[in-house]
Amino acid sequence: MKLARVGEPGAERPVAVLDDGRLVDLSSVTTDIDPAFVAAVAAGNGPALDGLPTVEAGRYGPPLNRPGKIVCIGMNYHRHAAEVGAPTPTEPVVFMKAPDTIVGPDDTVLVPRNSVKTDWEVELGVVIGRTARYLGSPEEALEHVAGYVLSHDVSEREFQLDRGGQWDKGKNCETFNPLGPWLVTADEVGDPQTLGLRLWVNGEAKQNGTTADMVFGVGEIVRYLSQFMTLYPGDLINTGTPAGVALGQPDPKPYLKAGDVVELEIDGLGRQRQTLGAA
Amino acid sequence: MKLARVGEPGAERPVAVLDDGRLVDLSSVTTDIDPAFVAAVAAGNGPALDGLPTVEAGRYGPPLNRPGKIVCIGMNYHRHAAEVGAPTPTEPVVFMKAPDTIVGPDDTVLVPRNSVKTDWEVELGVVIGRTARYLGSPEEALEHVAGYVLSHDVSEREFQLDRGGQWDKGKNCETFNPLGPWLVTADEVGDPQTLGLRLWVNGEAKQNGTTADMVFGVGEIVRYLSQFMTLYPGDLINTGTPAGVALGQPDPKPYLKAGDVVELEIDGLGRQRQTLGAA
Repeated sequence: MKLARVGEPGAERPVAVLDDGRLVDLSSVTTDIDPAFVAAVAAGNGPALDGLPTVEAGRYGPPLNRPGKIVCIGMNYHRHAAEVGAPTPTEPVVFMKAPDTIVGPDDTVLVPRNSVKTDWEVELGVVIGRTARYLGSPEEALEHVAGYVLSHDVSEREFQLDRGGQWDKGKNCETFNPLGPWLVTADEVGDPQTLGLRLWVNGEAKQNGTTADMVFGVGEIVRYLSQFMTLYPGDLINTGTPAGVALGQPDPKPYLKAGDVVELEIDGLGRQRQTLGAA
Repeated sequence: MKLARVGEPGAERPVAVLDDGRLVDLSSVTTDIDPAFVAAVAAGNGPALDGLPTVEAGRYGPPLNRPGKIVCIGMNYHRHAAEVGAPTPTEPVVFMKAPDTIVGPDDTVLVPRNSVKTDWEVELGVVIGRTARYLGSPEEALEHVAGYVLSHDVSEREFQLDRGGQWDKGKNCETFNPLGPWLVTADEVGDPQTLGLRLWVNGEAKQNGTTADMVFGVGEIVRYLSQFMTLYPGDLINTGTPAGVALGQPDPKPYLKAGDVVELEIDGLGRQRQTLGAA
């Protein structure tokens, strides 16, 4: 099943997206695509769509309403670690984004004031469906995944790397996590390690990778994280970006500026398009 | 005004704490101490207490119900940076905790499985009262503070420092942010840079500092953070810990184990007492 939220910011309604593109209104069965609904869908108690009315799309909002947390994995593609001169991690690198950074897939992304290094990162987002705590194996961990979502982990590299301390400083600017258009349930995605990810800036291809290049796969990431924190239904994990970010390119690096257009997609998870603005 | 939440976990009711210790039930004026209520109090639209019934205390829960985010400042006391051999930061070090790590002030704190370096950190917590975005001065920033709260930034040092990557890995274990008992409004606290902070383990004094030793004061922290992220009403900032953590002591360092009792307090913000358990 593909789940989405459509409507104006703050007033989105939950929908299911049919194979023919029509949207079924879920307002009568859930108030929102929130942790309780995600948990129900993951437990096999998703809504029956027969007889529900359809609605027009309009704007797509993020398909999750404020997850409890966003956990991010860094340097998780072999070719990305290589392009930025980092060693391949021996265990997952973990950092965090605030849930308030999430916007819709086609909403404006704001270049922060005083930013000189705003960068793009197409990522496979993993949505948790069952509480995950000290899991024993990657296989067990995959049973705790509700589904997958296209996630844009926008990053400011000077804030992240050159301003003292931890990466979070460059990961939490407002609008820095476009999400969606769809939350696609795990059964519909199948093997998460065979998905192509692509990103363009002003029509020029920048990233073209595959989740087969991940250092740590989705099951191992969820198992690993569950040793350090409890993951709850609706929590989002951004699993790292493939090669091709601005940071990895020769000087002068082509960082984003207001007016640029970023488009990104993952096989089966839909497509985003953002115009950059100025904060 | 002192605000609190009392009752069983997940079923706390909002109260105001009077000078004589009685608790006034706020259930009839707000469903919870949530971002909207914090914003109203910060705007001077707090509740009139006349005529409201009193209630018995029982357990204190955290005085905030799930803030939108928790932003933490590291190495923010001169003597703490010195004890762990770190240089005094030239700008604030920023990391994050997930809101789901929050528990009540006297709830059990769980030592994670496979932990060998669980450590304590008494901290002044700052609660935001007005949306803060690109603020111009520390003075302007202080006008965006709703109040203050005693916060325990429990940390696992091996996860944080020795497991590759970012500090967040050792800061987000379940139960790692006891909070409360009270959210004390800024007008009642006065100058936040003159508060004593103290912590004991099994009755032995470990931390005894003052917010006068902060590298960056509360106003500067809020101003600085607002250049990198938008702060919203109800967001929590943990402003760093003074000297005296286990990490700063000679080997063998006295890290926490199940059965230990940690007590902590800040002038005017109340006291916490946690018994350590095993995850």
